[in-house]
Amino acid sequence: MGLPKIVVMGAGFGGLMTVRGLQKQLNHQEAEITLINLNPYHYVTTQLHEPAAGTLDPNHTRVAIDSLISRDKVRFIQDKVTGFDPKEKVVRLAGTEENLSYDYLICALGANTETFGAKGVLENALLINNLNSARMIREHIEYNFARYQASGEKNEELLTIVVGGAGFTSVEFVGELVDRLPYLCAEFDIPREKVKIITIEAAPTVMPGFDKELVDYAVNYLSGKGVDFRINTPIEAVTEDGVILKGGEEVKAANVVWNCGVRGNSLLEETGLETMRGRVKVDEFLRAPGYEDLFIIGDNSLVFNDEERPYPPTAQMAMQQGQHLAKNMVAVLRGGDMTPYVYAPKGTVASLGRKIGIGTVGKNNKKVFGRKASLLKKIIDARWFFILGGISLAFKKAKL
Amino acid sequence: MGLPKIVVMGAGFGGLMTVRGLQKQLNHQEAEITLINLNPYHYVTTQLHEPAAGTLDPNHTRVAIDSLISRDKVRFIQDKVTGFDPKEKVVRLAGTEENLSYDYLICALGANTETFGAKGVLENALLINNLNSARMIREHIEYNFARYQASGEKNEELLTIVVGGAGFTSVEFVGELVDRLPYLCAEFDIPREKVKIITIEAAPTVMPGFDKELVDYAVNYLSGKGVDFRINTPIEAVTEDGVILKGGEEVKAANVVWNCGVRGNSLLEETGLETMRGRVKVDEFLRAPGYEDLFIIGDNSLVFNDEERPYPPTAQMAMQQGQHLAKNMVAVLRGGDMTPYVYAPKGTVASLGRKIGIGTVGKNNKKVFGRKASLLKKIIDARWFFILGGISLAFKKAKL
Repeated sequence: MGLPKIVVMGAGFGGLMTVRGLQKQLNHQEAEITLINLNPYHYVTTQLHEPAAGTLDPNHTRVAIDSLISRDKVRFIQDKVTGFDPKEKVVRLAGTEENLSYDYLICALGANTETFGAKGVLENALLINNLNSARMIREHIEYNFARYQASGEKNEELLTIVVGGAGFTSVEFVGELVDRLPYLCAEFDIPREKVKIITIEAAPTVMPGFDKELVDYAVNYLSGKGVDFRINTPIEAVTEDGVILKGGEEVKAANVVWNCGVRGNSLLEETGLETMRGRVKVDEFLRAPGYEDLFIIGDNSLVFNDEERPYPPTAQMAMQQGQHLAKNMVAVLRGGDMTPYVYAPKGTVASLGRKIGIGTVGKNNKKVFGRKASLLKKIIDARWFFILGGISLAFKKAKL
Repeated sequence: MGLPKIVVMGAGFGGLMTVRGLQKQLNHQEAEITLINLNPYHYVTTQLHEPAAGTLDPNHTRVAIDSLISRDKVRFIQDKVTGFDPKEKVVRLAGTEENLSYDYLICALGANTETFGAKGVLENALLINNLNSARMIREHIEYNFARYQASGEKNEELLTIVVGGAGFTSVEFVGELVDRLPYLCAEFDIPREKVKIITIEAAPTVMPGFDKELVDYAVNYLSGKGVDFRINTPIEAVTEDGVILKGGEEVKAANVVWNCGVRGNSLLEETGLETMRGRVKVDEFLRAPGYEDLFIIGDNSLVFNDEERPYPPTAQMAMQQGQHLAKNMVAVLRGGDMTPYVYAPKGTVASLGRKIGIGTVGKNNKKVFGRKASLLKKIIDARWFFILGGISLAFKKAKL
């Protein structure tokens, strides 16, 4: 009989924490571990708004998977997962006809874009989803700035940037953009006042769910930098020319970034699992309902707080889940008991460009503002690189 | 009675040399000098292939006109010349209803793109004409590399770069491109072999008019770097999808740079002057036929050699003409005699990327290759900045 086969889909925060926990805790003869990922690198999703705005080299946000796994303990397959079957216990891959069988499957595939029924989003909008799409945003904006300057028409729609959604990542993205604009304008000889940034949010507030005082701080700061916020304004469609708002108003813009939220990966629905906005309500051991061998972590897992409200999907939770799951897997393999996963929120910090930020930290949600919050954010970023590659990687990637 | 009014149109090599010669040699009460230019800066046309390929910061190739003229002797108007009337002795500007009258007009407006009757060139092709269009080429290529990587289709036409024309500037542009490609490919995670550079030339040789041994050197070097040359191949049309060759073959490419040659500025034809491919055959004093007060220098002047063949338009000739014309203008204003202009070719050097080049120097057209030629080219570039701003500007702009 062969070793138990553990297959981990996705090398994001959750998947990597699981794999690295397993390779650290397991001996060679305890399991056969396979990690599947689309790219040969891991990227730091929570930093993508920076290369998207052009304030950070995209290479900063990624680390080669080769350097993160022990090749003698973990097999790495670079491929696209096209589906999986929890009854047959197989994973389907784009690059091979042969299905990959498993004894335990860990789904850490990450989220899909939530369109909220708006038309044309996936066809016409730019997305801060992955390294390629983030890089695309930077190039798209630069290209349009070049086009504005090179054509005689001076079409100002080329200089209009609409950001759909004013949630956490949108505010961080806009914060980077206002940092970058002076340089971008200087490079392309464009007067700063010609550039418009319009952030459009369906909810009655910017950063829904965030502390009002912090939100006010962010809005004041960004408004002062020329960002226009429109709340209570759902977007009905993204077109080739801009966005159509509820009620019919059109905002013309050659640069539309859609960032209204995420839903679970469509592969989960296709598998027949019961989902809410694509996410699966997992049990205390992070298992999909009805399965003892299918674990779902990260953006695809739905975890509820004491008030029966779902926690938003965050890197923080994905990391905790991955770490916890690795321990539980080890216990299972060794005939022990799993322990329940309980989310332990440590706080949330958003950057507003390179120098300031806002956030809450600790159990009492202590508020932090300005430079202190910015520093905290950089420490949080550095911490992840420290976990992945120790002090040398943290130092290499530090932005302090 | 007012002072004689000298109007110089264009702040390229020729126009700047004239204005700077005049401001140096004339006293305050001898003439009223006006310089008109579209941009507030001068750019070095002969360097544009570098920012176009993305190997040089576009700012390197420009100098603020403010820093180049004596404001107490020269009035600078930043505007677009829309026409001039040598009978009425006025210049028309885009930004004002009022015409500018002159006693002496110096036309140093620079060239237009020569399409040779190919369709769709101005609509669909990228041009290495000015700073904005050069910057546009870099952004266009980067944008398409980003699009290739961000879309699932992996459309290789996005990675195909067609260069129309294999003359001097095309070869220099392609030389920079092959230098840049490894970095560009690394940045966008694109395998180098997926990128195609196809240089298409109607004439039976690359770099028509250049020494065969030097041409062979360039073609060997660039072919070795993966550049495909197609000679004897006229382009009939540039479309949104690529180019159509004579005979009907289509080469699909999302990046088409048209660089087949230049013709004189269309304003000269519109003025009713007799032109050959838009250029005016000037007399020995660089005057348009029939006019004592209209001087034409640079790319719009047609100067013949002893064998009655026209010299190609070059920066070298424009500089010489501007310098010579300034002296003649001073002579005229002071009641002296003009001296005839005779072109004194000093050689021609083309770069093939940052490190090597080819060229001929001196009266005997001594051939130079490789690193020596590259160094020579850098000295030629630095010399122009030295002329403009002395040792400090030359040092600031040096690329050694």
